[in-house]
Amino acid sequence: MSTAAGIPEASADSGAARAMERVRRARVWLSRAVEPGSGAVYRFVADLGPVEAVRRIRAGIAPAEVDRAAAGRRHVDEVDADLANAERGGIRLLVPEDDEWPAYALLRMESATGRGVPDLAPPLALWVRGTVRLDELVERAVAVVGTRAPTQYGRAIGKDLAHQLAARDWTVVSGGALGIDTEAHRGALSAGGRTVAIIAGGLDAPYPRDNLQLFERVAEAGLLVSEWPPGTAPQRHRFLLRNRLIAGLVLGAVVVEAGARSGASNTARRAQELGVPVMALPGPVTSAMSVGCHHLIRAGGARLVTNTMEIVEEIGRLGDDLAERPRAAETLLDRLDPVSRRVLDGLPPSGRARPEEIARAAGAEVLTVMRCLPALELLGLVTSHHGAWAIAARPPTPPPTAHTPEPQPPTAVTERP
Amino acid sequence: MSTAAGIPEASADSGAARAMERVRRARVWLSRAVEPGSGAVYRFVADLGPVEAVRRIRAGIAPAEVDRAAAGRRHVDEVDADLANAERGGIRLLVPEDDEWPAYALLRMESATGRGVPDLAPPLALWVRGTVRLDELVERAVAVVGTRAPTQYGRAIGKDLAHQLAARDWTVVSGGALGIDTEAHRGALSAGGRTVAIIAGGLDAPYPRDNLQLFERVAEAGLLVSEWPPGTAPQRHRFLLRNRLIAGLVLGAVVVEAGARSGASNTARRAQELGVPVMALPGPVTSAMSVGCHHLIRAGGARLVTNTMEIVEEIGRLGDDLAERPRAAETLLDRLDPVSRRVLDGLPPSGRARPEEIARAAGAEVLTVMRCLPALELLGLVTSHHGAWAIAARPPTPPPTAHTPEPQPPTAVTERP
Repeated sequence: MSTAAGIPEASADSGAARAMERVRRARVWLSRAVEPGSGAVYRFVADLGPVEAVRRIRAGIAPAEVDRAAAGRRHVDEVDADLANAERGGIRLLVPEDDEWPAYALLRMESATGRGVPDLAPPLALWVRGTVRLDELVERAVAVVGTRAPTQYGRAIGKDLAHQLAARDWTVVSGGALGIDTEAHRGALSAGGRTVAIIAGGLDAPYPRDNLQLFERVAEAGLLVSEWPPGTAPQRHRFLLRNRLIAGLVLGAVVVEAGARSGASNTARRAQELGVPVMALPGPVTSAMSVGCHHLIRAGGARLVTNTMEIVEEIGRLGDDLAERPRAAETLLDRLDPVSRRVLDGLPPSGRARPEEIARAAGAEVLTVMRCLPALELLGLVTSHHGAWAIAARPPTPPPTAHTPEPQPPTAVTERP
Repeated sequence: MSTAAGIPEASADSGAARAMERVRRARVWLSRAVEPGSGAVYRFVADLGPVEAVRRIRAGIAPAEVDRAAAGRRHVDEVDADLANAERGGIRLLVPEDDEWPAYALLRMESATGRGVPDLAPPLALWVRGTVRLDELVERAVAVVGTRAPTQYGRAIGKDLAHQLAARDWTVVSGGALGIDTEAHRGALSAGGRTVAIIAGGLDAPYPRDNLQLFERVAEAGLLVSEWPPGTAPQRHRFLLRNRLIAGLVLGAVVVEAGARSGASNTARRAQELGVPVMALPGPVTSAMSVGCHHLIRAGGARLVTNTMEIVEEIGRLGDDLAERPRAAETLLDRLDPVSRRVLDGLPPSGRARPEEIARAAGAEVLTVMRCLPALELLGLVTSHHGAWAIAARPPTPPPTAHTPEPQPPTAVTERP
């Protein structure tokens, strides 16, 4: 039995530990065999559990769409090597079955995938470097992104916004790229705040190499995160997949500067698809690096923001919106991913049940049930009492939130000679 | 009988000419006695005709609100001096009873006043300098306004936009102030285009004095326009009244740069109240002179624009909007000012009538009827045949307009390392 990174030693309950190890190894295999984002693969794994899903993919008996996703890598098995390399690099494996998994933050991706939005499936596993817990980091997280070729203006603003957001206890999430991303991480670090760099490729050699020193500091104050195992090259398509995860982990996304065809605009689009508020900084109309921001604002895809207060206000708006929708609870139910719905249906109409009983009733794996229940609890749909779970007495009533007044246009004018 | 500026000599129909002169002298008196913008005064004059209205105000038997508007100037009579000074200064008097009166452009102000929006009444008379006809100038007019203390960026953009708009045959309307207004007029002139400066105070000494040379060039290529007779000082409150007229004469208003408390934002607000599209240029978030623009955009009061094409597209949108509203004709009827409605009701249900007959039926002055009918015709509500007028056969159908496609957000991205 391997003692590779992150796998707990057999303990009192060695059966459960062995089951957990099988799950983790299955997800390591998936993280190398399948590019993330596929809704078909995500549902396949969620429905069968990772162990059985991997068995079927490797046996060549998975549905065609899933099979295609693993094309060419079906017979590769580098699980032991990946785990060993990770351990050597101080890289931890994080799986949905872990407590630290940011299940709540990822509900939006699950929901979008359930609605059929393509290429937005939640991750199957994450590789992380750093000691802070990811679920805690993304409780209050905002993305600050932008072009790799910013102006001096963009650099200064990006860094300053990130600094102020971090100082207000917001985790600044970005892509670790040169340019605005770099300033975002730096700004958060300069405030002694927390920041997460989501990397396209293996964390053993995070891209770009010029930022290695920055990445060390990010790993100390927050986390480096990747969906790919060590040794994975940062291929082009992976930057787009990475952008989806930046959008998927935050409560709002700010585009500081972006050219007409910028990756930051791609991140903004993914955020829109996820229902995450997108904001953009304006700049001179003469600046090519503000064209993307102005496009986003003109198209109604982003709100114009000019400072930290306006950003925080815009993210806060989400709660206000919910408060104004009396049918929010129903909508939530409608949008649950299929697995969560099944788990919810597996709970007894009255009284409590333990995860094993719910799993039997729902026809799902115990670990799946255990993964879903905390999220359902956060949504106010179920309650827990000493390890037993019950349907919540009534749909959650959104708490009354103070309504932030709209900023007023500049007020009366006394003179205009 | 005076032959002062603008009053035609008695001709074949000397009765009509004499009536017209009485009307003009009444309006000259009003332009000095009453500050413009008051809905009460406007309606009083529209209902009774200027001659009778002036008689009652001078006799002290006007309604209290009208009386208050003429407070302190009821006994002043400088009509002859005003007309003589105007003639000396090359200044023409323009009254609603003139062909050149921009009746169609001013329908929005009439409509707003009819709806009870305060301080937005159309002018009672206009003093103009220049040879181009005002009604033709404002057929395709756009306001370009902004702060008196612009940045280098604002100056350059303001001048360039005005240049390009004028080159596309748009009349650039502004306030003749230092700063952005000056650049707007200069830009239009540099394109050999047409521009109108709306001045707060007498045109014999247009304010600010630093722009005298610019004003000469504006008067050659377009018009200087004021609601006040020669010799009137540019007092503070007159700049706000002037802003309302800028907003009232254009199809769209562009704010180039504006501080947090800027007259340009006041012009923008008046434009909003009139249903005139407001646009604002973004700028660096670090620039105090873009704060007003960003506020307007954030508050939803202005559309962000970055170039001439976007401005023209935004003004064009008005037509698109109408085309999509099948009930546009009814709405138009509902919004007619009381006088125009009365004139419309004075037309026979079928067959034609001459203005005198309509005036009798409507209980209105012939000149009032003659002033209203062309506007009603432009709106498609009445038709004219050799000086006789009839109700239009059916409400006007807006012409099918090509729908301008929404600008797309920046498209797919191939890379974001």
